[in-house]
Amino acid sequence: MLMPAAVAWVAPAIAWLIAITLVVVIALILRNLAHRLIGRIVRRASAERPSLAGRLRGRETVTPEGLDAIVAERRRQRAETIGSVLRHIASIIILGTAVLTVLERLSVPIAPLLTSVGILGVAIGFGAQELVKDFIAGMFMLLEDQYGVGDVIDAGAAIGTVEAVTLRITRLRDADGRVWYIRNGTITRVGNESQGWSRATVDVPVAYASEIPVVRDLLKEVADEMWNEPAFRDSIIVEEPQVWGIEQISDTAIIFRVSAKTIPSRQAEVARELRLRIKAALDRADITIAA
Amino acid sequence: MLMPAAVAWVAPAIAWLIAITLVVVIALILRNLAHRLIGRIVRRASAERPSLAGRLRGRETVTPEGLDAIVAERRRQRAETIGSVLRHIASIIILGTAVLTVLERLSVPIAPLLTSVGILGVAIGFGAQELVKDFIAGMFMLLEDQYGVGDVIDAGAAIGTVEAVTLRITRLRDADGRVWYIRNGTITRVGNESQGWSRATVDVPVAYASEIPVVRDLLKEVADEMWNEPAFRDSIIVEEPQVWGIEQISDTAIIFRVSAKTIPSRQAEVARELRLRIKAALDRADITIAA
Amino acid sequence: MLMPAAVAWVAPAIAWLIAITLVVVIALILRNLAHRLIGRIVRRASAERPSLAGRLRGRETVTPEGLDAIVAERRRQRAETIGSVLRHIASIIILGTAVLTVLERLSVPIAPLLTSVGILGVAIGFGAQELVKDFIAGMFMLLEDQYGVGDVIDAGAAIGTVEAVTLRITRLRDADGRVWYIRNGTITRVGNESQGWSRATVDVPVAYASEIPVVRDLLKEVADEMWNEPAFRDSIIVEEPQVWGIEQISDTAIIFRVSAKTIPSRQAEVARELRLRIKAALDRADITIAA
Amino acid sequence: MLMPAAVAWVAPAIAWLIAITLVVVIALILRNLAHRLIGRIVRRASAERPSLAGRLRGRETVTPEGLDAIVAERRRQRAETIGSVLRHIASIIILGTAVLTVLERLSVPIAPLLTSVGILGVAIGFGAQELVKDFIAGMFMLLEDQYGVGDVIDAGAAIGTVEAVTLRITRLRDADGRVWYIRNGTITRVGNESQGWSRATVDVPVAYASEIPVVRDLLKEVADEMWNEPAFRDSIIVEEPQVWGIEQISDTAIIFRVSAKTIPSRQAEVARELRLRIKAALDRADITIAA
Amino acid sequence: MLMPAAVAWVAPAIAWLIAITLVVVIALILRNLAHRLIGRIVRRASAERPSLAGRLRGRETVTPEGLDAIVAERRRQRAETIGSVLRHIASIIILGTAVLTVLERLSVPIAPLLTSVGILGVAIGFGAQELVKDFIAGMFMLLEDQYGVGDVIDAGAAIGTVEAVTLRITRLRDADGRVWYIRNGTITRVGNESQGWSRATVDVPVAYASEIPVVRDLLKEVADEMWNEPAFRDSIIVEEPQVWGIEQISDTAIIFRVSAKTIPSRQAEVARELRLRIKAALDRADITIAA
Amino acid sequence: MLMPAAVAWVAPAIAWLIAITLVVVIALILRNLAHRLIGRIVRRASAERPSLAGRLRGRETVTPEGLDAIVAERRRQRAETIGSVLRHIASIIILGTAVLTVLERLSVPIAPLLTSVGILGVAIGFGAQELVKDFIAGMFMLLEDQYGVGDVIDAGAAIGTVEAVTLRITRLRDADGRVWYIRNGTITRVGNESQGWSRATVDVPVAYASEIPVVRDLLKEVADEMWNEPAFRDSIIVEEPQVWGIEQISDTAIIFRVSAKTIPSRQAEVARELRLRIKAALDRADITIAA
Amino acid sequence: MLMPAAVAWVAPAIAWLIAITLVVVIALILRNLAHRLIGRIVRRASAERPSLAGRLRGRETVTPEGLDAIVAERRRQRAETIGSVLRHIASIIILGTAVLTVLERLSVPIAPLLTSVGILGVAIGFGAQELVKDFIAGMFMLLEDQYGVGDVIDAGAAIGTVEAVTLRITRLRDADGRVWYIRNGTITRVGNESQGWSRATVDVPVAYASEIPVVRDLLKEVADEMWNEPAFRDSIIVEEPQVWGIEQISDTAIIFRVSAKTIPSRQAEVARELRLRIKAALDRADITIAA
Repeated sequence: MLMPAAVAWVAPAIAWLIAITLVVVIALILRNLAHRLIGRIVRRASAERPSLAGRLRGRETVTPEGLDAIVAERRRQRAETIGSVLRHIASIIILGTAVLTVLERLSVPIAPLLTSVGILGVAIGFGAQELVKDFIAGMFMLLEDQYGVGDVIDAGAAIGTVEAVTLRITRLRDADGRVWYIRNGTITRVGNESQGWSRATVDVPVAYASEIPVVRDLLKEVADEMWNEPAFRDSIIVEEPQVWGIEQISDTAIIFRVSAKTIPSRQAEVARELRLRIKAALDRADITIAA
Repeated sequence: MLMPAAVAWVAPAIAWLIAITLVVVIALILRNLAHRLIGRIVRRASAERPSLAGRLRGRETVTPEGLDAIVAERRRQRAETIGSVLRHIASIIILGTAVLTVLERLSVPIAPLLTSVGILGVAIGFGAQELVKDFIAGMFMLLEDQYGVGDVIDAGAAIGTVEAVTLRITRLRDADGRVWYIRNGTITRVGNESQGWSRATVDVPVAYASEIPVVRDLLKEVADEMWNEPAFRDSIIVEEPQVWGIEQISDTAIIFRVSAKTIPSRQAEVARELRLRIKAALDRADITIAA
Repeated sequence: MLMPAAVAWVAPAIAWLIAITLVVVIALILRNLAHRLIGRIVRRASAERPSLAGRLRGRETVTPEGLDAIVAERRRQRAETIGSVLRHIASIIILGTAVLTVLERLSVPIAPLLTSVGILGVAIGFGAQELVKDFIAGMFMLLEDQYGVGDVIDAGAAIGTVEAVTLRITRLRDADGRVWYIRNGTITRVGNESQGWSRATVDVPVAYASEIPVVRDLLKEVADEMWNEPAFRDSIIVEEPQVWGIEQISDTAIIFRVSAKTIPSRQAEVARELRLRIKAALDRADITIAA
Repeated sequence: MLMPAAVAWVAPAIAWLIAITLVVVIALILRNLAHRLIGRIVRRASAERPSLAGRLRGRETVTPEGLDAIVAERRRQRAETIGSVLRHIASIIILGTAVLTVLERLSVPIAPLLTSVGILGVAIGFGAQELVKDFIAGMFMLLEDQYGVGDVIDAGAAIGTVEAVTLRITRLRDADGRVWYIRNGTITRVGNESQGWSRATVDVPVAYASEIPVVRDLLKEVADEMWNEPAFRDSIIVEEPQVWGIEQISDTAIIFRVSAKTIPSRQAEVARELRLRIKAALDRADITIAA
Repeated sequence: MLMPAAVAWVAPAIAWLIAITLVVVIALILRNLAHRLIGRIVRRASAERPSLAGRLRGRETVTPEGLDAIVAERRRQRAETIGSVLRHIASIIILGTAVLTVLERLSVPIAPLLTSVGILGVAIGFGAQELVKDFIAGMFMLLEDQYGVGDVIDAGAAIGTVEAVTLRITRLRDADGRVWYIRNGTITRVGNESQGWSRATVDVPVAYASEIPVVRDLLKEVADEMWNEPAFRDSIIVEEPQVWGIEQISDTAIIFRVSAKTIPSRQAEVARELRLRIKAALDRADITIAA
Repeated sequence: MLMPAAVAWVAPAIAWLIAITLVVVIALILRNLAHRLIGRIVRRASAERPSLAGRLRGRETVTPEGLDAIVAERRRQRAETIGSVLRHIASIIILGTAVLTVLERLSVPIAPLLTSVGILGVAIGFGAQELVKDFIAGMFMLLEDQYGVGDVIDAGAAIGTVEAVTLRITRLRDADGRVWYIRNGTITRVGNESQGWSRATVDVPVAYASEIPVVRDLLKEVADEMWNEPAFRDSIIVEEPQVWGIEQISDTAIIFRVSAKTIPSRQAEVARELRLRIKAALDRADITIAA
Repeated sequence: MLMPAAVAWVAPAIAWLIAITLVVVIALILRNLAHRLIGRIVRRASAERPSLAGRLRGRETVTPEGLDAIVAERRRQRAETIGSVLRHIASIIILGTAVLTVLERLSVPIAPLLTSVGILGVAIGFGAQELVKDFIAGMFMLLEDQYGVGDVIDAGAAIGTVEAVTLRITRLRDADGRVWYIRNGTITRVGNESQGWSRATVDVPVAYASEIPVVRDLLKEVADEMWNEPAFRDSIIVEEPQVWGIEQISDTAIIFRVSAKTIPSRQAEVARELRLRIKAALDRADITIAA
């Protein structure tokens, strides 16, 4: 007479075990599938951006093959970083659901658990908004390839060379050697100085009494001379420098502007060289710089 | 005696299969319908904006036929971008509902799943507000055709030439060659310098002692002369330049203002030319610029 | 024996059909009623603003009949714009309710649908706040007739002539020809320069040594002379110009202020004319402008 | 035999009708009561502010009777504006409840309706916060009588004369004739220049070398002289003007300050008159104004 | 046979009446108790602040008895203002609960009512946040006695003499006679100039060539002389004035600082007197003020 | 026959009474336990901060025993303030739960009560965020001992001596005698000038023509001389003063910087003394201060 | 006959006891497991950052062994701090769930408890957002090793040497000896001056008339000379200093820039030394510094 009772106790237990095993197995399979799907999507999303090579071209002085390698490498890294995040999210959802389902099957009352987790979750959730913002911002920065290690960027809070990019922060080193950690979510706009070309702009204030056409020709001469030197032409300055004329009639001087298009991040150097040569030329021609 | 039991087990299973298949089929049909509907609405919304051609007219020096082609192309691109977003949203709603319905029919407990997704969803939702804002802002920018690739805009964070517009960000290149990535949601107002016309404004400070009427006539002469040159008239300057008179009696000078309406984005060039000629004219007439 | 079963199946089906048809019919009737009601309310709300004519009067130089036509036209446009929004909202509520009711009658489980829509809705809702703000702001701007096409307004982000007003944005063109798109929700205060009158204010700095009463009389003379010219009196300047006296004893000069009330948006022109004439008069009287 | 069935169908229908009629009748009665209650409360709240007359006294040059009339009129207007809002809110709550109750009695499923309205409501609710803020701010401004039409106020966004006050916005006209529409909710502090008195403050910079006591006496003399003229005494200047002494030993001058209390909004005029007279007196006494 | 039916109808009706009466009676008793409790707590909270007298002591020139009266009066007013708010809140909670309970007992469906109120409540609630903030801020300001009518405070938005303090706003009048209405919730920090003492600080710039020790002694002499006059000593200046030495070696002068502790709000007056006397003394000693 | 009925009525009544008494008794015991637990935790948390003594050491010139007493007293006060808050929270939770449980046992419908309280609670809750922020900020300030009465702190809104610290506000008195009430939640960073040491930094501008080494030696001499006076050495200046050299080659002068580490809050005094002596020394050496 | 009843009472009581004991035991085991898991994860996360050693290398002048020790110690501290937080969170969730489960098993009604806690929780939760933000920010700062005790950082609110880092605040001491307590959540970007290298930048303004090449050579000489001194080379200056040329043609001078890379936080010292030597060299060469 005990046996049937035992059977009555054993049978549902076995049914339970089967049910639970099933849940666990299905969860693991689903997670596996989700991970593969994510991998495929991310890889395809990366591959769909051929413009990357175009934008990188101006950035580094590399052979096309080297460029292809860099592009491929960057793309791989990016796919990996973002895929890892998505895989984590998928795992949390699938395994979390599985655990709750198992607990429910075991007749463990999950309401108290949910209550505890929920209250704490909301409490933390409010505070974690910023964190999520940082990660979302980071993901899109990577997906859109806004900048990479080695680029000189203006991130608002600081200007410098990118040393590292993670999903949460960007690490820069500015001109003074200061290392900046900037949360991605606080970067509303980024100015990248390492894509395509930069422009050196030199303002030259001359006295009111100066002969305007003479000054203009002199500036043009200096610009042409520099453009004709092989050390600058094409390798550093990528377009013939231009004298833009009188930018401003200020209350103390007539201000001329000279402009030169350079390869990325070399504009300061070119501007300094231009200033040196212009100052020398003006001195030779006895044209007074405004004072 | 087993057979009826089997039947009892098989019958509902078949009913299940039918029900599930039905749900899937209906979902796919609905999705298809929704996509078509969206396509039609978006296309119509684009077509309803004939003003686009009008606004573009002043922007580029193209033949009416070329303009029509540009307008048509822009319209097509816009319809595609926005339609794609709406199609994704519709797919997510319809397929999500279908999946949940199927799970429910399969007696899979969906409460735990919803709980997991819900908690994570709220957590992410708070942080993703900005993302949604960016997309909404981007959609309306496209729909209202506020700017397109090639326009020079003032987006607040930076001023430059638009290089790319996506639903999330706008990519500009400023005068120094810096490439700016600006999130659409952070652009509260846009100033487009490439629509219709621009105005070159030149302020000329002259000494207190100068004869006002003489200065006025001189400035008018310079402006007329420039207006009468075919290189400028109509092709660059689109209206007769005006001498506006004394803009300010500052504590150091009498400031005259000269103004010229130009085709879009050429105002700086015209202003520089005006300054050069005015300076020359004042020198010839021995009128001292204030110092 | 099959027949009763068929009947048993057919009868409720017919009942269903009737119920659903009823729901649809009622929904359409309600929608129709709501649209009419909205039309009536909006039209009445517009009609209740006779002050509009009063405020427009100063704005354009039109005959009373022309004014009435403008007012009527503006009112009609406004009623249409706002009515259209309210009609859309009413349609969404009524048809949405109808669809849900039908689905429920058809025993389609609507909980999963609501869940999908709900999660997505909240996610988008947070981000769409700004959008709703823009629309609400736009509606009230229209209802209160704060500005219309052709007015010169200061919208905070930019100052210029209104080119277009929609529920979401206001399009301005500033003095430099830049076209501004400003979201209505970001405009917390608007300054309209095209209603009633404007005031030209000219500050004249004179040397400390100047004889104050002489300067005062001279300025009054210039102002009177201008007021007495038919080209200005009433058509441009609407009140006798006033010399307000010493506005400031600054550390470099005694600053006099002259003021003239003009018709809207003509103040800059009048101020420039005043400056020209005052400078000439002071020169004639050998009074030194402070330097 | 049909009759009892008919009766069975008719009886509850009649019961329904009675129930619904009852609901409607009660709702209308409640609404009526609420409106009366609101009217009484608002009128009493207005009447409880006798200080209004006190504050208005200084504001306009009216006879006590005229003042009483103005006060009564303002109070009436205010009671009306606020009462109207409260009546609308009460109507919406009572009629909304009645409609839902009737629908429920009619066995119309109201869940779908509530869902539709709810989702839309939340979506709009987020965006409408600002609107509600404006109205609440407007109500308290009226209740506290912070300013009225004709007062000169500093509302932060603009300074000018109040032209209109509604629950949502305040309309000002500034000194340049610009009309400002300011949302009440954006006004965090208001400065009212038309209550009680204003103060004209004139800063007089004199050279370091000046004899301090002489300057002091001279300024006192000018102030006294003005105070003794019937045109100013009491009618414009309400207290004997004071010479406050050396306000600052700046790096360019010794700065004296003279102060005069005037009736509201006349301070600029008095200050200009004071400056004119002081300049004349210093000239007569050969005291150099700092330069 | 009708009677038992009537009884069956009457009995529960009587039970209902009793139940409802009971609810109402209990609610009124509870409200009464709550009001008394609040009165007691508020009075005790006020009484617990003996520091008030201490802080007021420096503020007004009153006899200890007068001071006690002021303190008692202020305390009473405060207790009343805050008690009134708490009483309102208690009444709303208790009566609201009673009304809902009665409605429920009467089998009136309260769900629709709650829905209507709830939706409106949330809509308004969002917008009313600011209002609640103002009231909470006001309550704590009163409880902490941060300032009272007659104090001169710096409230951020404006500086002036407090004219009125309510739970929602603070009314100030600034030095120019402008009346400011500032919402309590926008005042994040308050600077009260009328508690304990104020300090007059006078900066005296002297020429580089001046003999430092001589200047120092001279300043000390002036300060001592003023301190020894009965008109100032103790009644206005409460501590011996100090010469703090060279505060700054600016690029135009050596700046000395003299400081004097005064009774509250008299510092400007003392500073002006000090400047007058120092200027006179420096003139007598032929020490040039920097120019 | 009545008795059994009575019994039937009495028995559950007694059971009720017992149940309710039990709830009340348990609630009181739990509250008692919670209070003791809180007391113990807070006392231990305070005791765990031996660093306090270390940080106080530099702050006051007290004997080690006196210091120990101050530390113990501060710790006790802190434990009391924080413990009181936690005890209140525990009481509210435990007693609130007990009341609700009793009401439920008494079959009083608590849903209406919760609704009333809930709606009001949410309404107030939104507005009370700031209040809670202030309290949390205050608690951590106390726990971390960021500052105490008598410290000179920079709280952002104002700089001054702390007069009182409560959980909600901090009361400062600034140098001008103004008393500041600052909400703790608005203080995002605090600068405490009374911990460890302060540094006096004196910038000395000398003319370009000055002999740099001579100036350097002279400054060093002045610094050494001061360091060697017992009035300053160790008691006020705690480290040998340093001449840091040329801080800036400005456009008007060469600026030297001298620095001296002092005990807390005495830096201004030392800086003034340094300026006096440096000025004297430069005069003796005939070195011109830049002008 | 009593026994069975007793048994009936005892049996479930024992079942209860067993159930409760089981819950408690499982909870403790789970907590134990969670703590171990956390310990392992945190330790691994720390170990995965070998870059730490790299970044520290430039920071301190230590032997590789000393460096390894520092790195290991830092890593250990970090693992401990973060592990402690995670352990607390796990304990709260697990024990909270256990308590609620036990209460439920004991048939204690937990709804009232949850209500009380919930209302208070939400009220506090809103206010505690900032707290959670601070902790999350602190955790990531530690995990990413953005800075440690002894580093000189720019935290936005203040610049100084880190004295302590907790999860909630960072304690800095600035150059003036002020101790800053900054909440981690308010630090959106950190600039660390103690990682890798710093750069000393010296701007030298020379008169327009100066011979540019001579100045350039002179500056180069000074820089070389300093680089060749063993006191600086490698130990302080880590790269050959560079003369960058004309940085700006300002309206008062030609500004040259000299730059030197130093070990972290020594740049100010090097810059001062450079200024001294440059000034001396220019004096020797009779080159006028601009004035």
